[in-house]
Amino acid sequence: MEESIKIAQDAPLNHMRQFMADLELDEENFEFYGKYTGKIRLNVLEKFKDRPDGKLILVTAMTPTPAGEGKTLTSIGLSQGLQKIGKKPLVALREPSLGPVFGIKGGAAGGGYSQVIPMERINLHFNGDIHALSTAHNLLAAMLDNHIYKGNELDIDVTNTLWNRAMDMNDRALRNTVVGLGGKVNGVPRESSFLITAASEIMAILALATSREDLKERLGKIVVGYNRSGEAVRARDLEAHKAMAVVLNEAIMPNLVQTLEHVPALIHAGPFANIAHGTSSILGNKIGLKLADYVVTEAGFGADLGAEKFFDIVCRTSDIWPSAVVLVATCRAIKFHGGLSVEQAQNGYNDPEVFEKGLENLRAHIENMKKFKTPIVVAVNKFEGDREDEIDRIYEFCKEMGVECAAHEGFAKGGEGVTELAKKTVDLTESNLNPKKITLYDLDEPVEEKIYTIATEIYGADNIYLEKKALKNLAKYKRLGYGDLPICIAKTQSSLSDDSSLKGAPKDFTLTVTDVQLSAGAGFLVIICGNMMLMPGLPKRPAAEDMDVNDDGVITGLF
Amino acid sequence: MEESIKIAQDAPLNHMRQFMADLELDEENFEFYGKYTGKIRLNVLEKFKDRPDGKLILVTAMTPTPAGEGKTLTSIGLSQGLQKIGKKPLVALREPSLGPVFGIKGGAAGGGYSQVIPMERINLHFNGDIHALSTAHNLLAAMLDNHIYKGNELDIDVTNTLWNRAMDMNDRALRNTVVGLGGKVNGVPRESSFLITAASEIMAILALATSREDLKERLGKIVVGYNRSGEAVRARDLEAHKAMAVVLNEAIMPNLVQTLEHVPALIHAGPFANIAHGTSSILGNKIGLKLADYVVTEAGFGADLGAEKFFDIVCRTSDIWPSAVVLVATCRAIKFHGGLSVEQAQNGYNDPEVFEKGLENLRAHIENMKKFKTPIVVAVNKFEGDREDEIDRIYEFCKEMGVECAAHEGFAKGGEGVTELAKKTVDLTESNLNPKKITLYDLDEPVEEKIYTIATEIYGADNIYLEKKALKNLAKYKRLGYGDLPICIAKTQSSLSDDSSLKGAPKDFTLTVTDVQLSAGAGFLVIICGNMMLMPGLPKRPAAEDMDVNDDGVITGLF
Repeated sequence: MEESIKIAQDAPLNHMRQFMADLELDEENFEFYGKYTGKIRLNVLEKFKDRPDGKLILVTAMTPTPAGEGKTLTSIGLSQGLQKIGKKPLVALREPSLGPVFGIKGGAAGGGYSQVIPMERINLHFNGDIHALSTAHNLLAAMLDNHIYKGNELDIDVTNTLWNRAMDMNDRALRNTVVGLGGKVNGVPRESSFLITAASEIMAILALATSREDLKERLGKIVVGYNRSGEAVRARDLEAHKAMAVVLNEAIMPNLVQTLEHVPALIHAGPFANIAHGTSSILGNKIGLKLADYVVTEAGFGADLGAEKFFDIVCRTSDIWPSAVVLVATCRAIKFHGGLSVEQAQNGYNDPEVFEKGLENLRAHIENMKKFKTPIVVAVNKFEGDREDEIDRIYEFCKEMGVECAAHEGFAKGGEGVTELAKKTVDLTESNLNPKKITLYDLDEPVEEKIYTIATEIYGADNIYLEKKALKNLAKYKRLGYGDLPICIAKTQSSLSDDSSLKGAPKDFTLTVTDVQLSAGAGFLVIICGNMMLMPGLPKRPAAEDMDVNDDGVITGLF
Repeated sequence: MEESIKIAQDAPLNHMRQFMADLELDEENFEFYGKYTGKIRLNVLEKFKDRPDGKLILVTAMTPTPAGEGKTLTSIGLSQGLQKIGKKPLVALREPSLGPVFGIKGGAAGGGYSQVIPMERINLHFNGDIHALSTAHNLLAAMLDNHIYKGNELDIDVTNTLWNRAMDMNDRALRNTVVGLGGKVNGVPRESSFLITAASEIMAILALATSREDLKERLGKIVVGYNRSGEAVRARDLEAHKAMAVVLNEAIMPNLVQTLEHVPALIHAGPFANIAHGTSSILGNKIGLKLADYVVTEAGFGADLGAEKFFDIVCRTSDIWPSAVVLVATCRAIKFHGGLSVEQAQNGYNDPEVFEKGLENLRAHIENMKKFKTPIVVAVNKFEGDREDEIDRIYEFCKEMGVECAAHEGFAKGGEGVTELAKKTVDLTESNLNPKKITLYDLDEPVEEKIYTIATEIYGADNIYLEKKALKNLAKYKRLGYGDLPICIAKTQSSLSDDSSLKGAPKDFTLTVTDVQLSAGAGFLVIICGNMMLMPGLPKRPAAEDMDVNDDGVITGLF
């Protein structure tokens, strides 16, 4: 089989004009960005407002190995599979960040015969969205420091500001900085930091905004610090939110591209799944549901993080609920959770006992997803060399659990390899014509109870513990009136627990909350369990060293 | 008369398809970025290689007041005037930076009835070019710090690195920073700084590159620091230049927009005219000359800076030489150089003695431009309330000096108000069918002689003085083999001298060189006279506070 990059670069692309015709978009609804990408204007929502919505399919996963289990691949493959069986699908995905593109090789756009293209555009700059986000973020930072420097009328406490700067780069030297040095004309010295743009609250806001007005409203609510009386100072107090919305005026429009099999793909926003909720945009889903009968979307990390947040934060905000949940599993991840290393798990090592032990992780995720009362299909992403008896065992296990199962070969065969999953998914959506609207906690519950509910019902903890810093900040946010927000838990993606070394389905542990942060614009409290890496570094040999472009503009070495 | 922003927003735009047809571009030569902007692919140079080039017209100016004398306005107006008299023109301009857009009101896109549109796109993000430049700049910084952190095989002297970081923002707090704090895992602590992206060497490189290969070659030559033996360490030693070229793969293509009267406008690259050479791109000019009979381009600041660098750096590199020079003058600037304040000069204050004194500045610029043996027309940019006797005096003065003169009303009347200038410019180009190729110094002269030549022949100095730091750095660059580069003098734009308070045509002064910097990729030595501001700050009330966007995406308050 060809390498993924070769497949992507050799693939014939349909002109965006073709998609405009197929999707009934006209010049007023669409802006070209080159021949093979474009942005859909938000006025399509008005144009198609009388159309019934398509069905939303949420793709999530068991706890992944460090290698990743192919959630994006499965989403793309499933959309192609749906097309193969005669349906009208669309796939809605997150945008990649440039930082990691320069760091460690590995595409953020699927793989094999289940990819979105043109991958050079998608992985580099992608119609300017992430740069607009960095600019909006840094405009607010500049206006904050400028306000302090020019007299500080809002009486902002310079020792307690919350807003840092952002750059879409893997640059560890920017994690901890001092800014404003160089004497009086160069500002007020203070400690600061940079995060990678995908971790910016503005990325979460873009993903959750339901209109331009809502975007502006949310930007205005961002808390940048406190005044010396302890009251919150917001972006709108600095009059920054409107200009930030101006900066994001194009970024708010979802980007249209295509899969290798010409399924339309909307790629829009890419918030992290720890500090934020980890899904592509609500506007992308809303528009997608008007343009297609089935919209396949994915949530970041494992189902304990991504899917829980999708229901409790995203669906609660958008009131769009999935008709089916696709839970991605791999033989590799199951063996990994049975106790093997990733390398062992990949290399055909066969031990039924290990496999049974590893299935406990999948069991926990299935049980978790059942709480949302949405039909579930386990999608086994097949790798070359996977054993048939192991695949069979997963089918049997799912039957025992009372959920559907379908192995797929989206990587090796594209949509043709995902028709079983497509059919089963369609059947599930047919059986669920009025999707349930289930969230795990009510907003007016005390924050501690919300945390306890997720910790015990989803992660398998038997208790929670809030460290002093967390308690102090939580008390402050409650006092300021933010206690009614949903919660966004930031913990390791490598375990159902908050300890990345615990595989399988850990029990009898206490979830330790180390800190609480406020994302008032995005509209949630970030409950931090352990460390969060918000600015990655480059490896010793960055992937950037292998990239090149020739005199005709043809790029090589991007993956 | 309507406000400029109202004129721009009400103007009917021609679809880019119209320009493609008029300019004989097809789908292979053009990429849409929306309906009203796009990028021209570099393959048009091959397509039209057998076409004769059009004529290049360089627009420069006398020493400007702080309010600016309308060089961009005159360039746009002249292109519209040329169209009015039946010619086939194109205007080639620099790209605005976002930073100032948020800071102090004032468009970078002309004014009145001589503007380029759509101004929202041009002033915000403009097809991603400046963000790609920031990314390329910061990728090199991240790879440099990462190399040091990961073992420093090149033995880079961490106390003597030259490459900082860039952000397209007015943010004084980033002028002086410390990065790499936070302990061993977060990098190696060192002093650093941010400059605004327009001041990045990469901006100068983009403007001077003649092809993708040349771009990559120049990026590779950037000197980022020294090893502990004192040898230069370049971007190509870090293997960063190829990835940087990948990042700039779209930014290298000039952007096509239109003037209010639908003259095609190529807007591409925007280097400062102090630390860099201050003109739009060579590729933009090359392509423009294949697409039009007359390409009007402007050089930054006064003719002492912009025009000198255009001949000595840009023309020397591109081997494209102007057929005529348009020297912009205003009654306001003349009175300002006669000793009035800007406010006095604007308010109809009338004193022939002041006026005669102020004409000395114009005289110096005319004499300077004559050294390049290219025909000159003085373009008087007329303001409402300008006195006819003063305009007449400028005509008379130009006659005495043996150069053409034409007042214009591009602001109030568009192309209709610039036909006299257009006709006289055409006549000059007809009289100069083989443009002279004159530079003021040879590359193999000692650097001090090059500086002396510009200081005495252009600025009016009678001597030069190099401070210790300048001598030390110059000696180092000579030792490293960079003595043969052209020079790019960074001095105040507010005076012909290096003292911004000296108006008119100062004589008998010594030009003091405070420092010398190397831009090895751009290919010049920056000769610094005084302070250079490379990261502006925001004013007390930033223009950003007045910007807004409504739910339909209509932006207000941008100017």
